[in-house]
Amino acid sequence: MTNEARHAPGRWKDLSLSYEEALVRLPEALKKEGFGVITQIDMQETLKAKLGVDFPRYRIFGACNPSLAHTALLTDPRVGVLLPCNVVLYENEDGKVVVGAVDPMQTLGAGAEGSGLLDVASEVAVRLERVLAELSA
Amino acid sequence: MTNEARHAPGRWKDLSLSYEEALVRLPEALKKEGFGVITQIDMQETLKAKLGVDFPRYRIFGACNPSLAHTALLTDPRVGVLLPCNVVLYENEDGKVVVGAVDPMQTLGAGAEGSGLLDVASEVAVRLERVLAELSA
Repeated sequence: MTNEARHAPGRWKDLSLSYEEALVRLPEALKKEGFGVITQIDMQETLKAKLGVDFPRYRIFGACNPSLAHTALLTDPRVGVLLPCNVVLYENEDGKVVVGAVDPMQTLGAGAEGSGLLDVASEVAVRLERVLAELSA
Repeated sequence: MTNEARHAPGRWKDLSLSYEEALVRLPEALKKEGFGVITQIDMQETLKAKLGVDFPRYRIFGACNPSLAHTALLTDPRVGVLLPCNVVLYENEDGKVVVGAVDPMQTLGAGAEGSGLLDVASEVAVRLERVLAELSA
């Protein structure tokens, strides 16, 4: 559970908040950028229930900015396989809390040039970056 | 809402099922491949509620194979921004039903070589491809 790989999925920040504080602050920071939380997955709970294994605290928030989602879906309805935008909070092995967000420029992949989705992806990326910056400030 | 772009998000199949039939068949096909549906987003309803706009029937299923998710998270906890694996059903402008699934090889991005996640991504991709094939058979 290290943080050094160059091409790891998503963009990440270490936090000085507690996990409980981050659970409260994250939805607030998302809301400021126009994102509602429309799904939540408690991965610790899911893995315990389904596999009986112990896993650190780990939650996946599905964030959706309805207006940007609508624009993206009108541009190409297939973008729905990349929705909602995931933001993750977890506790690493040192008990430190880490926040990460999907990078829509990364998930659209190398062939997205000219697809019309890049403008929306870029706007989403900027907003999610501000969410991470606010939490880690 | 066409299907011809080479590098569009995800992998897609046209169905001869009705939307209602597909809503029943999709979770069954996912279950055969070890995926439970852990989130569901009705995008038509969400866009109506949040923006007041009319949108075709469109549903995003968050599918999770707990065992493969666990393996992926142990390999790199940051993979959570790509979980769960999305499968989408929608009605296109001709009233035809289309099914698509995220392509984990695509969303991991070009820099994933050697990350250890590619083996899991490849296994997930094969299983999701079988789900699409079964629905479109």
